[in-house]
Amino acid sequence: MFEHFETHITSITSFTKEELRRMRLLSAEKKLRRRQLLLHEGEVCRYKAFVVKGLLKTYRKKDDGTEHIMKFAAENSWMIDAESFNNQTPSRYNIEAVEDTDVIVWPRENLHELFTAVPAFKLYSEQLITRTLEASQNRILMNISYTAEEKYQDFITSFPDIFRRIPLHMVASYLGVSRETLSRVRHAQIKRQKNLDAGESRR
Amino acid sequence: MFEHFETHITSITSFTKEELRRMRLLSAEKKLRRRQLLLHEGEVCRYKAFVVKGLLKTYRKKDDGTEHIMKFAAENSWMIDAESFNNQTPSRYNIEAVEDTDVIVWPRENLHELFTAVPAFKLYSEQLITRTLEASQNRILMNISYTAEEKYQDFITSFPDIFRRIPLHMVASYLGVSRETLSRVRHAQIKRQKNLDAGESRR
Repeated sequence: MFEHFETHITSITSFTKEELRRMRLLSAEKKLRRRQLLLHEGEVCRYKAFVVKGLLKTYRKKDDGTEHIMKFAAENSWMIDAESFNNQTPSRYNIEAVEDTDVIVWPRENLHELFTAVPAFKLYSEQLITRTLEASQNRILMNISYTAEEKYQDFITSFPDIFRRIPLHMVASYLGVSRETLSRVRHAQIKRQKNLDAGESRR
Repeated sequence: MFEHFETHITSITSFTKEELRRMRLLSAEKKLRRRQLLLHEGEVCRYKAFVVKGLLKTYRKKDDGTEHIMKFAAENSWMIDAESFNNQTPSRYNIEAVEDTDVIVWPRENLHELFTAVPAFKLYSEQLITRTLEASQNRILMNISYTAEEKYQDFITSFPDIFRRIPLHMVASYLGVSRETLSRVRHAQIKRQKNLDAGESRR
């Protein structure tokens, strides 16, 4: 698994052989089966995880059983409950494998050691936080200003690969739109597309 | 103005006199009248601003003229368009004074100088980013999982001071709820409160 991570991260920043050896030494590999949890609600998040293969979701379960998906992480992306990890407080979220998933994890204390030993990795992590913050701001803007149809379209455009791999109710959960609304939006789109195709073929 | 900032920041972290002198030297003061803009859409965000007195809002104007409020910043809080500031790209937002507002601003290049000269200020800024990210995550969870009534209640509880200072349509804009829905929620709450009060007085 580590070779995959090495290929990915060296395509972004350069590291010495010794630095990569250190990163490997302080990491651990985990294999999750579909539906297996990497983090349970109520536990403290102790790891930062990099997805090598598969798909994870972070979600909050409401008292009535409904699931609200905060994030998906597929190949070459990171997953963490930052609030729980930073403050070492019980998580309000679950992190679960949507497919069989391979991850590399770094425990918190090892990560701190790495940041001191490998400044380039600290810089990379800071840039990751900056990008995550920008993405969060964009998602908030989408949440408060887009119609259900615009949200659905934005998801397909932004995450075409994830869209193909998950059922529609997970898209609805991520967007904060009811399943009924999303089905309506989808049927209207399919109908419009059919009319368009019919128009094209009549030419 | 700077004395106010000094009192605030030294209550969080300690700085030497020389460090504070440097922070002052690299800053500038600005006075905004109500409705005056600190940042126009299309401009590059060149400053990080600290609010000494008054209230700012960051919003995006859609083509149809509707305003979507991303953030409020009252006394002792910071305002910036981070994406524009970090990448030096044109902003998609406006930052506007909701009341007459006094701010202290640090231009980008001065801030970089400060981070090197005053490591405690860099650490403080990093912690600010971490907290902003946590708050963004919580807002996303609220956006996708709360009912309009829960969102409204959460706003009052989280920002009681700002709630008192802004008209209801700005609350609606921040929450991503239509004015009509928010009016309905508010009337239902007032009615319930009245019934509760009547019940109390009948005892």
